[in-house]
Amino acid sequence: MPSRQYVLTFSCPDKPGIVNAVSGHLFGHGANILESQQYSDPETERFFMRTVFALVESGASFEALRETFAVPAGRFAMQWTMRDRGDRRRVLLMASKFDHCLADVLYRWRIGELPMEIVAIVSNHPRDTYRHLDFEGIPFHHLPVTPGHKAEQEAQLWTLIEDTRTELVVLARYMQVLSNALTERLAGRCINIHHSFLPSFKGARPYHSAHARGVKLIGATAHFVTADLDEGPIIEQDTQRVSHHDTPADLIRIGRDIERRVLAQALRCWLDDRLLLNGQRTVVFSV
Amino acid sequence: MPSRQYVLTFSCPDKPGIVNAVSGHLFGHGANILESQQYSDPETERFFMRTVFALVESGASFEALRETFAVPAGRFAMQWTMRDRGDRRRVLLMASKFDHCLADVLYRWRIGELPMEIVAIVSNHPRDTYRHLDFEGIPFHHLPVTPGHKAEQEAQLWTLIEDTRTELVVLARYMQVLSNALTERLAGRCINIHHSFLPSFKGARPYHSAHARGVKLIGATAHFVTADLDEGPIIEQDTQRVSHHDTPADLIRIGRDIERRVLAQALRCWLDDRLLLNGQRTVVFSV
Amino acid sequence: MPSRQYVLTFSCPDKPGIVNAVSGHLFGHGANILESQQYSDPETERFFMRTVFALVESGASFEALRETFAVPAGRFAMQWTMRDRGDRRRVLLMASKFDHCLADVLYRWRIGELPMEIVAIVSNHPRDTYRHLDFEGIPFHHLPVTPGHKAEQEAQLWTLIEDTRTELVVLARYMQVLSNALTERLAGRCINIHHSFLPSFKGARPYHSAHARGVKLIGATAHFVTADLDEGPIIEQDTQRVSHHDTPADLIRIGRDIERRVLAQALRCWLDDRLLLNGQRTVVFSV
Amino acid sequence: MPSRQYVLTFSCPDKPGIVNAVSGHLFGHGANILESQQYSDPETERFFMRTVFALVESGASFEALRETFAVPAGRFAMQWTMRDRGDRRRVLLMASKFDHCLADVLYRWRIGELPMEIVAIVSNHPRDTYRHLDFEGIPFHHLPVTPGHKAEQEAQLWTLIEDTRTELVVLARYMQVLSNALTERLAGRCINIHHSFLPSFKGARPYHSAHARGVKLIGATAHFVTADLDEGPIIEQDTQRVSHHDTPADLIRIGRDIERRVLAQALRCWLDDRLLLNGQRTVVFSV
Repeated sequence: MPSRQYVLTFSCPDKPGIVNAVSGHLFGHGANILESQQYSDPETERFFMRTVFALVESGASFEALRETFAVPAGRFAMQWTMRDRGDRRRVLLMASKFDHCLADVLYRWRIGELPMEIVAIVSNHPRDTYRHLDFEGIPFHHLPVTPGHKAEQEAQLWTLIEDTRTELVVLARYMQVLSNALTERLAGRCINIHHSFLPSFKGARPYHSAHARGVKLIGATAHFVTADLDEGPIIEQDTQRVSHHDTPADLIRIGRDIERRVLAQALRCWLDDRLLLNGQRTVVFSV
Repeated sequence: MPSRQYVLTFSCPDKPGIVNAVSGHLFGHGANILESQQYSDPETERFFMRTVFALVESGASFEALRETFAVPAGRFAMQWTMRDRGDRRRVLLMASKFDHCLADVLYRWRIGELPMEIVAIVSNHPRDTYRHLDFEGIPFHHLPVTPGHKAEQEAQLWTLIEDTRTELVVLARYMQVLSNALTERLAGRCINIHHSFLPSFKGARPYHSAHARGVKLIGATAHFVTADLDEGPIIEQDTQRVSHHDTPADLIRIGRDIERRVLAQALRCWLDDRLLLNGQRTVVFSV
Repeated sequence: MPSRQYVLTFSCPDKPGIVNAVSGHLFGHGANILESQQYSDPETERFFMRTVFALVESGASFEALRETFAVPAGRFAMQWTMRDRGDRRRVLLMASKFDHCLADVLYRWRIGELPMEIVAIVSNHPRDTYRHLDFEGIPFHHLPVTPGHKAEQEAQLWTLIEDTRTELVVLARYMQVLSNALTERLAGRCINIHHSFLPSFKGARPYHSAHARGVKLIGATAHFVTADLDEGPIIEQDTQRVSHHDTPADLIRIGRDIERRVLAQALRCWLDDRLLLNGQRTVVFSV
Repeated sequence: MPSRQYVLTFSCPDKPGIVNAVSGHLFGHGANILESQQYSDPETERFFMRTVFALVESGASFEALRETFAVPAGRFAMQWTMRDRGDRRRVLLMASKFDHCLADVLYRWRIGELPMEIVAIVSNHPRDTYRHLDFEGIPFHHLPVTPGHKAEQEAQLWTLIEDTRTELVVLARYMQVLSNALTERLAGRCINIHHSFLPSFKGARPYHSAHARGVKLIGATAHFVTADLDEGPIIEQDTQRVSHHDTPADLIRIGRDIERRVLAQALRCWLDDRLLLNGQRTVVFSV
C-alpha cells in the first residue's frame, strides 16, 4: 500500500442512487477510490459494497469524512463500517489438542500474511500441549472444560473476550461446542473451521463418516458460528481428491492441509473486510 | 496397444499367495503382465486386483488360460472377470430433456475416447428433443413415463436391455427414479450421474439447495444405482468454485461441465475394468 | 436479466474523480448501477472499469446517456465501449481437423450458454470433416491453405470478416499460423486456444514436449493472437494432473477437456465485456 | 501398519516373467504381498515395480529373503532396493532466508506425517534467522557462502553429508546454486523445490516473471537436482489460480502455500519409496 488506505463496507436495501451517493461523498471529502466491489442480491433485494479509498486532497480529514457519512448511510438505511486499513483487528484464537491450524495461523501472522493483533490464545489443554510453538509473548489461557462447569468456563472466556476487546474469535480446531448463549453473543464475529465439506458430515468424526460413505473428495469449511451446529453461514470451502486406498488416518492427514488453507483464507477475507453477512449466507468479495 | 491385450479383475478374501498364484498361472500360460494394480482392504480383509497381460509365448491360448483359471479362482473364492480388451462392452444410454451428458458421451464415443458399443438410446422424451444430435444409426427408443404406467414402461425397458444384451445402463441425466425391482435387477451395472457432491443435496433440484445453503463449491457424483436413491456406491466426484454472485441458473450452467466430465470419467473406468465394488464403496484403480 | 441491461467498460490513466464522474453521469441520466468492477494497475497507473446498469427513471434514454458520455470520457482520456447486453456480438469460428473445441462452442451456443451470433464457420478442411455436427444453417466456408497461396487464402478470409461484420475471430484449434499482416488487422479481436500452459511448450506438438519433459500437470491457454506466436496476452488458463503412465495420446485426450473449457470460459468473458487489454496482459473481471 | 512391513523397488529391462519371478521369490520366502504397483515404459522398454510385503510364515527371515533376491535381480539386471519400512531414512535439510518450507517440513515431521531422521539443518544464514522455530535438538550448521569461497563451503557441506550418512538432501528454498561437481555427487538424492511451474520461469525471481507475462495460474515444482539448473527430473507439481489484481508480492504469498505442499508431497513419496528415476523423468507410484 503506497499510502494510507481506508475501507468502507456496507449493505442496505437496494435502490437507485446508492453508488452515486457514496462516490459523491467520498469525492467531496477529497478521497480517491482505489478498489470497489458491489453485489446486488436479486432474492433479498439487498445491496452490498466494499470500497477502498485514499485521501488525495490536501486538508482532507478521515474523521470528517466518516462522521458525515452518517447522512447518506442513514438515508439508505445502511449497516456500515469504515476504518483505516492499517489498524490491526483484535483476534482471539482458540484450539484444542490438534494444533495444525493454530501453528499455521501463527506462522502466517509472524511473517505478515495475516495482519492482526492476536490478543490471546485460549485452549482447554495446558500450555505444554503447544511446547514446540513460539507464542512470542501472546498471552495463553488454559480454560479446561470439566463436566458440570461449562457455564463457568464460558463465563471466564467471555470476560477474557471483553477484557481484550476481541473483535473476532477464531475456533482453530477448538473441539468444544459453544453454548447457544455464547454463540448468540458472538454472532457474526466467531469463525470455525469444520473438517468436512458442509453440509455433508456435520458433527463429530467427519473423516470417518467420509471414509464409510466412500467419497472421492474430502473437504473443509470455514463458517460463522451459530447456535445450529455446523449450520452457520459458509465463508470458504475447498476439497481434495482421495481414493479407496486412503484410510481414515490418511483422510485426517490430507484434511489437515485443506483445513489450514481454508481457515487462513477465511481469516484473510475477514481481516481485509471482504466478508459480509447476507442472512444465512455470505458475500465474499474476491480481489 | 501394440498387441492384443487381456484384462483380469477379481476380488476375494485376502490371504497369502494370491499374487503368486495369479502371476504363476499367467506366466505358465505364456502371458506377460503389462500392468497390475491391487488393493487390500484392511477393514473387510478383502483383496482386489486388476491385471493387464499379453500372450508372448508361441502357442499360448487365451481360451485355455481363461478356462484353467477356474482352478486358482476356486481355491481363493474369487469373483472374477477376464476378457479381451479389444472387445467392446454393450452400453445403453438413457436421457431426459437435458442432453449435455448424452451429447458429451456420444462425442467422446465418436472420436474413440470411450470404446464401447452403444446398443440403444432410451428417453422419456421423443426423438425430436435431440434433433441436433447425430445418433449415427444407434437405435432410439421413446419410452414415455405416464402416471400409472411406470411398471409397463420399465417392463419395456427391461425387454430392451435383455434383447440388446446390455452390459451397462448409463443414466445420463435420466430424470426418472427407477423402481426398486429394476434397480435390483441392474445391481452393479447401472451408473447414474447426480448433480451434487453427494451425500449433500440428494434428490431433486440440488443446485437450488446448494444456492440456498450458500456453499462455495458445487459438485457432481457418478455412482452405481441402488434402491436407496442417491445412496449407491460412489465412483467419481468433482467440484468447482462458485461465488455469492452465482444464481441457481449459474450453478446449473457450471454444473453441466462438472457432470459431463465426472460421468465420462466414471464410464471410462468401467469400460477399462478399473472399477470394482467393495460393499457400499468402490475400488477405482487409477492408471 | 429482469430488465434491459447495459454495460460500460473503459480504461484510462488513473486519477481522482473517475468513479464519481462515471456514477454521476449514469445517475444523472436515470440509470441504476447493478454491478461494478474496477482495477487500478499500480505499474502502468492505468484504471479499468466495467459497470452494468439499467435505466430506472421514466423517460431515460440510453442513446442520450451514451452520446453525452463522450464528455467525461474525453476529460479522462478513456478508451470505452457502451452497449446493450442483449445485443448479440458477431463471432466467426475457425477450425481444422480436430473439432472438439468447435463442437463444444456450438453446443454451448445452442443451449444459450454463449449468447452470440455465429456469422460463419471457416476451415481449411472440407465441410464433410464435420459431417456429424449440426451447423444449424451457419454458413460454412472451406478455405484450404495450399503452398504459395496463403496470402490469397487470408485475403478471402479478410473479405469474409468484413462482409460478415465480424467482431471476434475464434481460433478453435485452427492449426494454421496467421500472417503478421492479418494478426495486426485482428489485434484485440482474435482469440486462440493453445494446447499448453503457456509460456511452456509454445509452437507445435506441445503434448509431446510435455511428455518428454515429464511434467506432472498439463494445461491449456486462451490468449489474444499477436504477431509473436503464442506470445499474446493471456486470457484464461487451466491445468490437470497427469502421471508417468500417460502417453502423449493420453495427454492429448486429457487436454481436449482442458482446451474446451478454457476456450469457452475466455469466450464467455469476452461476450460479457469482462475482458480488457492492459498492454501485454489482460484484466479479466470475474463475476 | 499392523505388522512389520518391507518394501522392494526396482527397475530393469522389460521382458516376460519378471512379476512371476518376484512374486515367486517373495512367496517362497514366506512373504505376503500387501501392495504392488508396476509400470512398463513403452518408449524405453524399461519395467518399474514397487512391492510392499510382510512375512507371514513362521521362520521367515527378511535377511535371507533379501540376500537371495540377488539371484532373480541379477537375472533381470535390476537396479533394486529392499528395506524395512520402519527404518527411518536420513535426511538433511537446507534453507536460506525464507523459512516457510523448512517450518512446514519440520511441523509435518514433528506430528509424524513425514517419518524420517533429520540429521542436520544447514543454512547460509545464521541460526537466529530461525529463532521462532523449535529444531528440537537437530544439529544446525551455519555454512555462509562468501565470494571466492564457494568450493570451501561445499567441501564442508560434503563432509557433513558423509559424516551424517545423509541419504537425501532437501533444498527447502535454499537459494544458492550448487556446483556441478556437487550435484553430480548428489545425483538422484537431492530434491529441490522451485517456485514456478517448470519448465516456465526457470532461474531467479520466477514470480516476477509470471506477473510480467500475465499468467492466470502460478505453480511450484519439486525436482531432482542436476547440473542443468531447474532441468532435473520433475517429481511433483501443482498450480493455483491468480488474477490481474495480484501483485508480485501476492504471487509470492500464494506461492508459499503451493511450494510447501508440493515439497511435502515429493518428500513423502521419496520416503515411502514411491519415486523411481526413469532417465530424465520420474515414475511416481500413487497409493
